[in-house]
Amino acid sequence: MNAEILAVGTELLLGQIVNTNAAFISRRLADVGVHVYYQTVVGDNAERLRQAVELARTRADILIFTGGLGPTKDDLTKETIAAVLGARLVHDEAALSYIEDYFARTGRPFTENNRKQALVLQGSTVFPNDHGMAPGMGLQQGDKLYVLLPGPPKEMNPMFTSYVEPFLQRLAGSDALHSRVLRFFGIGESQLEHVLQDIIDSQSNPTIAPLASEGEVTLRLTAKHALAEEASRMLDAVEAQIMDRVGEYLYGYDDETLHEKAVAMLRSKSFSLSCAESLTGGLFSERITSVPGVSSLFRGGIVCYSNDVKQQVLRVPAEVLQTDGAVSAACAKLLAENVRELLGTDVGISFTGVAGPDSLEGKQPGTVYIGISIQGQPSAAVGLQLGGSRPLVRERAVKYGLYHLYRKLEEL
Amino acid sequence: MNAEILAVGTELLLGQIVNTNAAFISRRLADVGVHVYYQTVVGDNAERLRQAVELARTRADILIFTGGLGPTKDDLTKETIAAVLGARLVHDEAALSYIEDYFARTGRPFTENNRKQALVLQGSTVFPNDHGMAPGMGLQQGDKLYVLLPGPPKEMNPMFTSYVEPFLQRLAGSDALHSRVLRFFGIGESQLEHVLQDIIDSQSNPTIAPLASEGEVTLRLTAKHALAEEASRMLDAVEAQIMDRVGEYLYGYDDETLHEKAVAMLRSKSFSLSCAESLTGGLFSERITSVPGVSSLFRGGIVCYSNDVKQQVLRVPAEVLQTDGAVSAACAKLLAENVRELLGTDVGISFTGVAGPDSLEGKQPGTVYIGISIQGQPSAAVGLQLGGSRPLVRERAVKYGLYHLYRKLEEL
Repeated sequence: MNAEILAVGTELLLGQIVNTNAAFISRRLADVGVHVYYQTVVGDNAERLRQAVELARTRADILIFTGGLGPTKDDLTKETIAAVLGARLVHDEAALSYIEDYFARTGRPFTENNRKQALVLQGSTVFPNDHGMAPGMGLQQGDKLYVLLPGPPKEMNPMFTSYVEPFLQRLAGSDALHSRVLRFFGIGESQLEHVLQDIIDSQSNPTIAPLASEGEVTLRLTAKHALAEEASRMLDAVEAQIMDRVGEYLYGYDDETLHEKAVAMLRSKSFSLSCAESLTGGLFSERITSVPGVSSLFRGGIVCYSNDVKQQVLRVPAEVLQTDGAVSAACAKLLAENVRELLGTDVGISFTGVAGPDSLEGKQPGTVYIGISIQGQPSAAVGLQLGGSRPLVRERAVKYGLYHLYRKLEEL
Repeated sequence: MNAEILAVGTELLLGQIVNTNAAFISRRLADVGVHVYYQTVVGDNAERLRQAVELARTRADILIFTGGLGPTKDDLTKETIAAVLGARLVHDEAALSYIEDYFARTGRPFTENNRKQALVLQGSTVFPNDHGMAPGMGLQQGDKLYVLLPGPPKEMNPMFTSYVEPFLQRLAGSDALHSRVLRFFGIGESQLEHVLQDIIDSQSNPTIAPLASEGEVTLRLTAKHALAEEASRMLDAVEAQIMDRVGEYLYGYDDETLHEKAVAMLRSKSFSLSCAESLTGGLFSERITSVPGVSSLFRGGIVCYSNDVKQQVLRVPAEVLQTDGAVSAACAKLLAENVRELLGTDVGISFTGVAGPDSLEGKQPGTVYIGISIQGQPSAAVGLQLGGSRPLVRERAVKYGLYHLYRKLEEL
């Protein structure tokens, strides 16, 4: 089976946005054994889109469209495909009432063109949009499969994972694919691949696919078997082989994130948390509070961007700032201890460093100190030298902080 | 004149890399008045690449290829195009001696397959590769133009800007395109389009293209004229028409962001800033501190996620939390006033609300209050009912905060 991915949108042809959807979908399809031979981008133009659909039908089994499901006149993916297939468009009642509710709830004026978003190809399987309004859909016609998805990645990615993948697997039938993702931190992609090369090369079922992003590395193990239990056993066996070599870097599975793991660990210990952020400017707090219901354990934080705030609010002595500097292990420890006391929590964590682009206190960009203070324990600081641009340094610092917090609590 | 961009590389079809080249080239072509009607991605497969070239010749005047110019057997862009065009490949002496020098200089062993990188289509204009080895080339044949460029963006982007653009402009002559992007906040895409529909429909030069993302809407105005001054006048005229109807929602131009605008406004008034964040959990601070050099005006913030912190650190009276609640205009105002005093700044801003998924204090998800306190002014609160998931509510709340802060300061 092979697929063609067709992105629809003039903004792509103008270069205003990058087609990350094609890469996302291609990667997921590769994991389930579907080959992608072409990715096509076409504008909001009915005639050129029609030609692209006609062509794709001659060279692919599965046609996956992204974009052009919105409310405006420019959005013509559904209409064009319906015309090519001789299919009808009908209102999906669930989608329509969701859209009407949304406008009523937010008090925004409902304009008639929004009803268009609830139109679907008659006879298709409708995919709910958990992060937006326009639903997706999948329609089998003859030996071809047509999948239509919204353009914004925030809507498309979760829709693909939650609804399109199971839909494709149901159609594929027989030997289903069972995946498990292992998540690592603190080891580079090339190093991980190097250490596991012989295992990766010798495996065909399950397959092992590494993927790196932002300091994290994942391995996706995919087993093909009709029975879920047997597939699970196959995955266990390969996982055990991998754990033998790089188990110390594993922090989680599947969609687990470092911040969710850290929060779960705090919860299991009934520990409350606070933080003091200089370098990261609120990013750590933001990440922690993205977990719903975290208010029972995360009390708050101080963004101590200026040294005045470090001194006056967080009581770092002027001597420390003068002799060690704000970017130092000593300062990181004091920030963690003092925010813990100030906000009355069991655990305090702090971030200080140089995000760049300029140096600070003679320390180069990427210099980072993370302080961790746990009630009844001596406080500790971790020094790092991170690479990358300003946003990357901040992002990576937060991940290291979450990782070390998790490990420290695990060791207790 | 219209162009098709063809990216060659199986790693794109596997989703291992994102096709940023297509966006980069499209944007640059749009600016010089070349329409892109299709972007195509095809793998390292001679037969499918040949078909893609044959097809593109029937629908585009300019074919721009990226990737497949390297030394390995997988790199077959030149060979395939030469076969389709009946052209010969010859060694470019300058490229060849550059490559040989490179290996001699770095002491790396020269392998014979590297000579392949210096092959060019006979009769083509050769584009030097200032950041790598494989040169690019442009060949006119009949009324079609073939441009071949290396795949790595760090080689391709500078080659395009330095050599391909001048090459295209020499060939094209005549009218250039001039764009201006207007950025709006606080109005939805469908509403904006509805209000401006007659202007959009009646315009062909300049053209008007709307684009929405995350609560912001942009309009790209593009005028075609040989003289930059005249194009600018044409853009001014359309902008004035648009401003008449939706001017109150405009906040900036081109690549300006809300947080940069807010920071610039604070700087122009020599005002310092602090913030108190409940709902947004540090996201506002993070956004503000993403601007380098902001430490001179942003002193810091308090993430007051729990009511204890609101009460004990930010001194919101228990009565207010009990009667009005933490999610209230009264609480938002007090948070803004008190963080301003605590951190000693000219301006304080606060965020309180319900991010969801659950309700809080009987208020539904999306309920947001933003407090703004400016030294010497009565403090104010804005109440909002926002739609979307938990991360979207937080994201939008921050944008509304930046927008209202900007407006309030502008009015002073």
